[in-house]
Amino acid sequence: MINAYAAKEAGGKLEKFEYDPGELDAHDVEIDVESCGICHSDLSMLDNEWGITEYPFVPGHEVVGTISKVGAHVTSLQIGQRVGLGWHAGYCNSCRTCEEGDHNLCQQASMTIGGRHGGFAEKVRAQARAVVPLPEKLDSTKAGPLFCGGITVFNPLVQFDIKPTSEVGVVGIGGLGHLALQFLNAWGCKVVAFTSSESKKKEAHELGAHDTINSRDEDEIKQAEGRFDLIISTVNVKLDWNLYLSTLAPKGRLHFVGATLEPLDIGAFNLIGGQKSVSGSPVGSPATIKTMLDFAEQHNIEPVTETFKFDQINEAVERLREGKAHYRIVLTR
Amino acid sequence: MINAYAAKEAGGKLEKFEYDPGELDAHDVEIDVESCGICHSDLSMLDNEWGITEYPFVPGHEVVGTISKVGAHVTSLQIGQRVGLGWHAGYCNSCRTCEEGDHNLCQQASMTIGGRHGGFAEKVRAQARAVVPLPEKLDSTKAGPLFCGGITVFNPLVQFDIKPTSEVGVVGIGGLGHLALQFLNAWGCKVVAFTSSESKKKEAHELGAHDTINSRDEDEIKQAEGRFDLIISTVNVKLDWNLYLSTLAPKGRLHFVGATLEPLDIGAFNLIGGQKSVSGSPVGSPATIKTMLDFAEQHNIEPVTETFKFDQINEAVERLREGKAHYRIVLTR
Repeated sequence: MINAYAAKEAGGKLEKFEYDPGELDAHDVEIDVESCGICHSDLSMLDNEWGITEYPFVPGHEVVGTISKVGAHVTSLQIGQRVGLGWHAGYCNSCRTCEEGDHNLCQQASMTIGGRHGGFAEKVRAQARAVVPLPEKLDSTKAGPLFCGGITVFNPLVQFDIKPTSEVGVVGIGGLGHLALQFLNAWGCKVVAFTSSESKKKEAHELGAHDTINSRDEDEIKQAEGRFDLIISTVNVKLDWNLYLSTLAPKGRLHFVGATLEPLDIGAFNLIGGQKSVSGSPVGSPATIKTMLDFAEQHNIEPVTETFKFDQINEAVERLREGKAHYRIVLTR
Repeated sequence: MINAYAAKEAGGKLEKFEYDPGELDAHDVEIDVESCGICHSDLSMLDNEWGITEYPFVPGHEVVGTISKVGAHVTSLQIGQRVGLGWHAGYCNSCRTCEEGDHNLCQQASMTIGGRHGGFAEKVRAQARAVVPLPEKLDSTKAGPLFCGGITVFNPLVQFDIKPTSEVGVVGIGGLGHLALQFLNAWGCKVVAFTSSESKKKEAHELGAHDTINSRDEDEIKQAEGRFDLIISTVNVKLDWNLYLSTLAPKGRLHFVGATLEPLDIGAFNLIGGQKSVSGSPVGSPATIKTMLDFAEQHNIEPVTETFKFDQINEAVERLREGKAHYRIVLTR
């Protein structure tokens, strides 16, 4: 049996919950959960915002822990090894995207918090392919958020071959954005944070931004016309995307990792004139997660976290819900 | 003095018009116009659809002819040389995009039919940099449309490094689309034409399409889910772009060379899930035009044209306006 925390209904409190995980699949591993980040998508799933949540629902997909069991066919991981687990808990491993190494785009990928139970628990299981060893220097109580928030903003740098000579804007300096600033600074880019908060402006500089733009000041944004090779948007609210497009340099890209539900009302002319692109991407493949972890270790990049004990789990969720998390919350033993 | 055809007002008939081009700029050349294609954007400008037309207005930006004069500083072109001229008649040649070879994205680029007079004339002038020699095997009475329609659909193949292993959809089989099918077939791609017309379906196959999809049959489009690495849209009407996005493979791109005035109401989730891109681009640089002309010569690619004499110019314009051109109209002597 596995001891976990589950919600019984949409928006419900997390309560102690015990479930029988059955026999360990030959390709899976079991992880003793040491810590687990809370991501905004845990909240979206908890509230059944996307209409796909099954209850009882155990959140948690920014897991760090230690391998405690390995399935019969697992050779890549060993008992006692320190690992992490993110948004995906498994892949089909046979489609074209998997074969090409783009497991995160696999149409049959399974979610860590959908169709199975997540990491707000003593133990969690996942396919060995989706579980990534943690480099030695990374802190177990800090690294969790890298496995979802971190990889989500790191992945586009790899996928779109972003050059260190690029000037990059980050929209939304929160859980994802504060990691984007650190990665981009270490990547060699000129980094600009779009933020409306004076306190975050100062912090953005400390996190690696070379400049900031007030995201509520249309004139200030207009002055950045033609400036950015890449803008990464981490927000899930609707902004004036055509205005942001105007701040892209020729061949620039406006990339969404935060999903606004309202359509992006992009003008075709705004793309055509400067050969601009609008795109999006989800998390990253296991290979890209490994690359990110090595890069984070090399450059001393880690999430800024607040720590809660697992038995304060509802306070932690409430704090995130109120938008007070600074910048990311991690549950620890 | 230069003898030309001009409209005196928005939507007006083209009438004989004589103008004094002044002294030849040191960096410009003068071309004796042998033929000139009529592009849909000539019509848009004639009707002042974009609000930037100056009258009297001389259309024509798909020029083929012979160099008759060269400016004092011109060394790249010689009198008597057979050349073509497209949408752009000059560049600043000193901005970053020009320095990087992306002259077509230069913010100071001048239009062949704006701020100066176009190719519906006996002679036309342009900066030598914007004038490209015509390879020997290309037919002077056929090649004109390559300089705007052709380069517009060829350019994205170069810019986005489209692989011959790609499956590519072309939306809109008209002046641009019928050239896209030929280029893509020669590029090695699997080519699919989206068209609603039975007669065009047959022609699309002759032009290089390996398959067709009925663009008015939603079910048929839905069956193409996850199929295309690239879709090039040449139409200027609004379609269900989210439906077209669903036909892209992971990492696929929906690329606009035709500009719909209505916003593209793209769902962010439809980009994020499969790491998809939406983009646009305008014509191409002189270097890419040269590459295209060589490729067209190598693969015997030429526009399917209807020919009108210059003195039938109003009949020709009317035919294009009525959507009857098959596929492209060229004015000849």
